[in-house]
Amino acid sequence: MRTSQYLLSTVKETPSDAEIISHKLMLRAGMIRRLGTGMFSYLPTGVRVLRKVEEIVRQEMNKAGAIEVLLPMVQPAELWQESGRWFSMDAELLRFQDRHQRDYVLGPTHEEVITDLVRREITSYKQLPLNLYQIQTKFRDERRPRFGVMRAREFIMKDAYSFHLSQQSLQQTYDAMYSAYCNIFNRLGLDYRPVQADSGAIGGSVSHEFHVLAESGEDAIAFSDSSDYAANIEMAEALAPKGDRAAPASALTEVATPDAGTVAEVAALLNVAEATIAKTLFVLAEPDEKGVQQLIALVLRGDHELNELKAEKLDGVASPLQFASEEQIRTLCKAGPGSVGPVGLQIRIIADRSAAHLADFVVGANKDGFHFAGANWERDITQYQVADIRNIVAGDPSPCGFGNLIIKRGIEVGHIFQLGEKYSKALKAGVLNEDGKHQIMTMGCYGVGVSRIVAAAIEQNHDENGIIWPDAIAPFQLALIPMNMHKSVRIAEVTEQLYQQLSAAGIEVLFDDRRERPGVMFADMELIGVPHTIVIGERNLDNQQVEYKNRRTGEKVMLDIASVVAEIQQKIS
Amino acid sequence: MRTSQYLLSTVKETPSDAEIISHKLMLRAGMIRRLGTGMFSYLPTGVRVLRKVEEIVRQEMNKAGAIEVLLPMVQPAELWQESGRWFSMDAELLRFQDRHQRDYVLGPTHEEVITDLVRREITSYKQLPLNLYQIQTKFRDERRPRFGVMRAREFIMKDAYSFHLSQQSLQQTYDAMYSAYCNIFNRLGLDYRPVQADSGAIGGSVSHEFHVLAESGEDAIAFSDSSDYAANIEMAEALAPKGDRAAPASALTEVATPDAGTVAEVAALLNVAEATIAKTLFVLAEPDEKGVQQLIALVLRGDHELNELKAEKLDGVASPLQFASEEQIRTLCKAGPGSVGPVGLQIRIIADRSAAHLADFVVGANKDGFHFAGANWERDITQYQVADIRNIVAGDPSPCGFGNLIIKRGIEVGHIFQLGEKYSKALKAGVLNEDGKHQIMTMGCYGVGVSRIVAAAIEQNHDENGIIWPDAIAPFQLALIPMNMHKSVRIAEVTEQLYQQLSAAGIEVLFDDRRERPGVMFADMELIGVPHTIVIGERNLDNQQVEYKNRRTGEKVMLDIASVVAEIQQKIS
Repeated sequence: MRTSQYLLSTVKETPSDAEIISHKLMLRAGMIRRLGTGMFSYLPTGVRVLRKVEEIVRQEMNKAGAIEVLLPMVQPAELWQESGRWFSMDAELLRFQDRHQRDYVLGPTHEEVITDLVRREITSYKQLPLNLYQIQTKFRDERRPRFGVMRAREFIMKDAYSFHLSQQSLQQTYDAMYSAYCNIFNRLGLDYRPVQADSGAIGGSVSHEFHVLAESGEDAIAFSDSSDYAANIEMAEALAPKGDRAAPASALTEVATPDAGTVAEVAALLNVAEATIAKTLFVLAEPDEKGVQQLIALVLRGDHELNELKAEKLDGVASPLQFASEEQIRTLCKAGPGSVGPVGLQIRIIADRSAAHLADFVVGANKDGFHFAGANWERDITQYQVADIRNIVAGDPSPCGFGNLIIKRGIEVGHIFQLGEKYSKALKAGVLNEDGKHQIMTMGCYGVGVSRIVAAAIEQNHDENGIIWPDAIAPFQLALIPMNMHKSVRIAEVTEQLYQQLSAAGIEVLFDDRRERPGVMFADMELIGVPHTIVIGERNLDNQQVEYKNRRTGEKVMLDIASVVAEIQQKIS
Repeated sequence: MRTSQYLLSTVKETPSDAEIISHKLMLRAGMIRRLGTGMFSYLPTGVRVLRKVEEIVRQEMNKAGAIEVLLPMVQPAELWQESGRWFSMDAELLRFQDRHQRDYVLGPTHEEVITDLVRREITSYKQLPLNLYQIQTKFRDERRPRFGVMRAREFIMKDAYSFHLSQQSLQQTYDAMYSAYCNIFNRLGLDYRPVQADSGAIGGSVSHEFHVLAESGEDAIAFSDSSDYAANIEMAEALAPKGDRAAPASALTEVATPDAGTVAEVAALLNVAEATIAKTLFVLAEPDEKGVQQLIALVLRGDHELNELKAEKLDGVASPLQFASEEQIRTLCKAGPGSVGPVGLQIRIIADRSAAHLADFVVGANKDGFHFAGANWERDITQYQVADIRNIVAGDPSPCGFGNLIIKRGIEVGHIFQLGEKYSKALKAGVLNEDGKHQIMTMGCYGVGVSRIVAAAIEQNHDENGIIWPDAIAPFQLALIPMNMHKSVRIAEVTEQLYQQLSAAGIEVLFDDRRERPGVMFADMELIGVPHTIVIGERNLDNQQVEYKNRRTGEKVMLDIASVVAEIQQKIS
């Protein structure tokens, strides 16, 4: 491709409305333009990257035995009413009517459509398992679209859905998808991690997210420093501290803590570490037969944070989690939230594993302005349970048993779920099993954010001059930059010849034939992130040489003109 | 691909709701399923064909210098208001609101979005010409969707838009697109014709349609039997009959034609050919200064039909064409429409070229129940003009000057337009020209109905057993059919070996490894239209041979097992 016949559309100025680096660089590199809120047109450079990501995803899905389909983006409301999501989803689900006032949605995802398709096509266990995927445009009317294509309303997904008659079969396909996703992200050349995840509102139980690591990532991920273990921070298990709990050494003593309501204030006042204080939170239990919701006390170490996901999964705790009001707390404890504790409470008490390991600790005395020092489990609080209810923190031992946890930030670019029967049950999607009986299928679903990957790759691969594409998804593999070609016939001839030879060898070359100063050409090629560059200049031509530059390493070497094609081919493979 | 791991989804019964053969066969061959009115899910076999069509279109567009972009399917209403189509288009344009009650459309086409993009990106004549295309899903809320994907609401288009500063530049790109389209349809292996077309509501002047010829086609096309000439029947010029008009031989004579109001009735009554009768129609002229619309008489040969498009393009004729009411005709002629004619009328008279070549013809006498015989131009009708205002009929001389016209039916699968300034003017899309002055760009647009091509290919290529795909777009190139593989280890082994060898050679093989009777397998492979089949049977294996069958020709030959790969490769290339 010659720049003179291309729509390069690079921009020098950093756009003011872009918050994150990938959004800025996609605008500056001429990859996208905003059409409306959360909607982007892809310019040629953007499309080239997008198509490469798509193709890698497609190849790996095919290799893993998934079969490509293509489902409509406009979906009849009836199917969403059948699954219940027509009623349960908020305005994120874009609803509209056609010319005959029939209701439709603009597809944010395709569980309903695919389940409907499969229940009509598949009648026998012999046709299972089945894994169908598509690469397609979706629309989600996000409340607050932002960060360019990272959180757009219109975006491109690869979504796959698998159907099975047994958990074992589902697990096999799930494992195959896990491997396929690893292959995809390896081939894309990205630093990524599969992490254990909560399956959230989509339903189901087992789930992994695939995160591209980047400082700007929205999600925090916990890793072991000594194994492959990784989990979304919300999911990572916090182990009990090692060793036995120390025996009580102090008596339970009431101490005045006037004006000290927070852990930090109590610690400062009493001159103790926050880790030796236990804080108490109150949540509501599930309603009993009479519809009454008792309070439950959750006790955490002062330096730890409650993990609400973990807490709401505990038996008997109302889900979603509901915190007690200040009034409810005061009625129960005869004190405000700053002075409450488990000692003497006649309700269910759940201590976090780390809190349960404390001895001689400080807790609120259930008396305004007072705490207890020297509190001890068993001796002072006889009835309690122990559970993991806190967020892990960096340095915690890894739940895998090896090493300690470190926390990094990631961008979720893939997500695999074991959906179970959530949709197949609602839509009565079953087949005849080996015994000739009708049996509901169990499902998995597997998503890759194709357009999001483009942004995530940039978040992970850039410098002050622009994007640094991994070879596999670069819009062009090689930039040819002639110095003042329009003044030198020799340079024009050599460059033209190289362009022909490289293109004939199947290399994707961007030949910068504009009448621009060399500085402008270098800046543009660095900005759009072409991995390899050949510079053709007068002086080097005297030695039958050209200069090679590597975008990522900055490496510069001289190459004999005769060896350019072979050298570049080697660097690219 | 093994059928056991594929979603073949063939159906024996002909679906009752499908009207045309391509719709029936796409359902039966497991290519599509209906999701809702005018909306279809593509099953794996359908996707495979679709992707091949897409890829051929993409390659030829790239080769012709067009650059791929990708525009949102959801488009802000503001742009459509700016172009005026928000107001001029009917319910076919699907309008909806997002969660913030902002107006959008679901894109049926992208003139507005691309013109908006280009007016922001392109500032100088140096960046022109520019030709941008995309392959993308569109939505058109058709009043009456039908014929499966042929006239669906959601469909896939390749749409391209070019931008220029001169008609000459537009013509160059238009010609390049014309050639690219010929390359596309040649490569697809379809019998097609580029035909001159009316540019219709989309605006602009020059336009060609590309039609796949098929008896079921919705459009009639006129061809020369001796040249490349082809035109939409509405556009084809009807030449004047050759030679001079005969001199008058009869006197003008009033003849009684009671109860004969139509040409056929008059011809029967007077025992003359319809071609010797002239019929007269009345339309309205453009309003004069006072707003009055005079009548204009249009005179045609009795066996010819008025071409309304041609008539409304005549100077002074109201456009769109308005026919005079019976009352207006009676006021003018003192007779009803069945007995009117040009003799003695004091209004503008336009005779079709063929009507103007008549001598001694029959016309209405402007007296109920009477006609004139022996009417002659000049002598009896002194004031009249001659123009081409009729539809051509088969056998007419071709307007190209060579041969005669034949009429065939076609399916429109491509359309190229010279749009001119319709959208660029409305959106004020201009650049600085060589003189440093702001100049509105002129535009072309170029569409290919990607999903429609799939259906059109079937309409043209099928027999009673199913689809007969051209090699280039077949879902699979070769079917491997083992006879009773599950009972014969030898057959299983040979077939498996052939499958591995053929696949390794890059051939797309569908290996029918189902436990089905041979008849079922043959029927399915013929139905889905695999072009080449290899049958592996016991008896032939004794001679180290397998049977080859060609889907299109029915040709059957024996091949040595050792030569299968080479033979198939040769047949495919």
